[in-house]
Amino acid sequence: MALYVYKFGGTSVGTVERIKAVAEKVKKAQALGDQIVVVVSAMSGETNRLIGLAKEMQVQPTEREMDVLISTGEQVTVALLSMALHEIGCDACSYTGGQVRILTDSSHTKARIRKIDDSRIHAHLNEGKVVVVAGFQGVDEDGNITTLGRGGSDTTAVALAAALKADECLIFTDVDGVYTTDPRVEPKARRLERITFEEMLEMASLGSKVLQIRSVEFAGKYSVALRVLSSFTEGNGTLITYEESSMESALISGIAFNRDEAKLTITGVPDLPGVAFKILGPIADANIEVDMIVQNIADDATTDFTFTVHRNDYQRAKAILEQTCGDLGARKVTGDDGIVKVSIVGVGMRSHAGIASTMFQTLASEGINIRMISTSEIKISVVVDEKYMELAVRALHAAFKLDQPVGA
Amino acid sequence: MALYVYKFGGTSVGTVERIKAVAEKVKKAQALGDQIVVVVSAMSGETNRLIGLAKEMQVQPTEREMDVLISTGEQVTVALLSMALHEIGCDACSYTGGQVRILTDSSHTKARIRKIDDSRIHAHLNEGKVVVVAGFQGVDEDGNITTLGRGGSDTTAVALAAALKADECLIFTDVDGVYTTDPRVEPKARRLERITFEEMLEMASLGSKVLQIRSVEFAGKYSVALRVLSSFTEGNGTLITYEESSMESALISGIAFNRDEAKLTITGVPDLPGVAFKILGPIADANIEVDMIVQNIADDATTDFTFTVHRNDYQRAKAILEQTCGDLGARKVTGDDGIVKVSIVGVGMRSHAGIASTMFQTLASEGINIRMISTSEIKISVVVDEKYMELAVRALHAAFKLDQPVGA
Repeated sequence: MALYVYKFGGTSVGTVERIKAVAEKVKKAQALGDQIVVVVSAMSGETNRLIGLAKEMQVQPTEREMDVLISTGEQVTVALLSMALHEIGCDACSYTGGQVRILTDSSHTKARIRKIDDSRIHAHLNEGKVVVVAGFQGVDEDGNITTLGRGGSDTTAVALAAALKADECLIFTDVDGVYTTDPRVEPKARRLERITFEEMLEMASLGSKVLQIRSVEFAGKYSVALRVLSSFTEGNGTLITYEESSMESALISGIAFNRDEAKLTITGVPDLPGVAFKILGPIADANIEVDMIVQNIADDATTDFTFTVHRNDYQRAKAILEQTCGDLGARKVTGDDGIVKVSIVGVGMRSHAGIASTMFQTLASEGINIRMISTSEIKISVVVDEKYMELAVRALHAAFKLDQPVGA
Repeated sequence: MALYVYKFGGTSVGTVERIKAVAEKVKKAQALGDQIVVVVSAMSGETNRLIGLAKEMQVQPTEREMDVLISTGEQVTVALLSMALHEIGCDACSYTGGQVRILTDSSHTKARIRKIDDSRIHAHLNEGKVVVVAGFQGVDEDGNITTLGRGGSDTTAVALAAALKADECLIFTDVDGVYTTDPRVEPKARRLERITFEEMLEMASLGSKVLQIRSVEFAGKYSVALRVLSSFTEGNGTLITYEESSMESALISGIAFNRDEAKLTITGVPDLPGVAFKILGPIADANIEVDMIVQNIADDATTDFTFTVHRNDYQRAKAILEQTCGDLGARKVTGDDGIVKVSIVGVGMRSHAGIASTMFQTLASEGINIRMISTSEIKISVVVDEKYMELAVRALHAAFKLDQPVGA
């Protein structure tokens, strides 16, 4: 007998009919003899409806009250799903985050899980019940309701799987797995049977928004086998797991991209210790997130410093940087908000030379100029003009034979 | 400094604008230097919406899950009202029933309050905060969410007022107080400044549906001064209080009526011990509530037995009674579902003779035939044909001078 945590997002429980379909799926799984815990989100649209009401009440809604408000969305879903299970003869019991109890810190609207009490859930599972838990929410030590932030239901599912020592955590979404790249850009993109946590983190942060990144970190940290699969179609989805020796040994697993980048360069900066902090400190103070950072030594005891930000923050960041430029006595600030980042990701590149040169050669042969390069152990990112994005993705997808099953 | 519990029902918090109006009213009250606890219901329509969803899920929704579901309605309102209070610079903090904590028994959908922990509320009040509590809900000893049944928010307010030793519990509704009778029937009906708990109980159970009857019982039991007043207009409403020597000494306080009655008579019942139980037992077993009961000794060692039921239960009750009639060897069953009950209520009648005769004389002089009479210490009820209802109410209203202020 195995124990599985199933997680269904807002779209999967968005209507009465879909909740009933989830109930059928859960009943079928339990009938195979396994123990099932189900984590659900609010019905799609509900959280936004509640946030809309909040904003009518208060220009900047109090975060504690926001959590009291929006946590009702998942509470409604757990009750409805439990009823749907009862209706088809499957015994079930609902839990709010506070009832489990999922203990978090007190950072309202973005709380972190500290501890989960698994005793009551195990007791109910052993009685043959399906346990239905509200995602996204918890309770702090003083009993205040907290929420984990958008996408927090994934985190709830993974944390529960870890606490319950579940055999697998299955995240049902509207996609049927993780692909080598976005199929809307490269129709030959292929679903991966497996991907490592590290690769998934790089893919997720680069824009393959299948899973909330915190839930992947959590799964990696607590060794939870995570599977992404479709609510609406049959299939095995993609298993997110540890790097194993028996694994498919692809050089790279996928190609991620991010359309929303803008780059800023400050040139002729006197090359002194602390200069990076002097440049990025004011940017961080303005709550602007910085993505890639590249610094080169120039020839005249000055340095050039480039970084990328979200395109929405471009104008603000540029104004701050121009101020800094004057303060530091640097030469000038240039920028470009018409760029994209394309990355190849794969644990295989650790042990294989030549991946980077294959990438650069592929782009060169398509006449694509590389504007910026940044690398990590399992990822190489380049910045190119946005008009080349699709071409770059498709060329790299072909060059690394991602359209073919590994070993073919 | 006084402590007040304010309670606003679903209509009073039915829209964003109305919640804001409630916030203004509460802020104004606090600004006078008093401590304010606010109990709110779900926004009007919300509970029915949730019940509708439940019924789509399950033909007979599981009661535990129903409570999980519908308790979200009040949770939404407490968060929104707290936000509205913050927006106008009034510090506030929301509580669900489970957070207070309002401990109840485990009778889902109709739980009874056992205990209320007032420590956190007092702490917040002493910090100068308005405390906003979700009505209608609690939590049992195992942490399961319970609800108190329709109208339970009134009970929450009264129970909190008792636990907190509040100076007064103010129930804001869509009427501006308790009237001598229904103004739709007698336009000369007058708002009462005061009414006793006992009178209010008799009025409420007879159809003056201003307050949930349980909340009045509760208020009486725990000596909570209760005031009914309008959310939408200014005014003092009606204070429901103990009988006091200094009180207005009206003979009767009001005239209640109930249109939904039907009466059933079984005649020629052998007059033996236990006969009332033999007649009413099967009725109670069928979950039919019985209102008035009258039994007379007839002359031939048999008795006639008459009782009233809700008009909706008339046919069912009649069928059961016909069965009983055969079993007991009684003569026959007759019935009438075209009747109404009209009652005069007043603590004053305890110490004044002649109230009943004034009532009967008034009805006789209007040519109204009395079909059944039942009395209690502070109430006299008569059953008359339904066509006479308005006439009876107006004639009695005039006869007891209810249109004139006491002492005038």
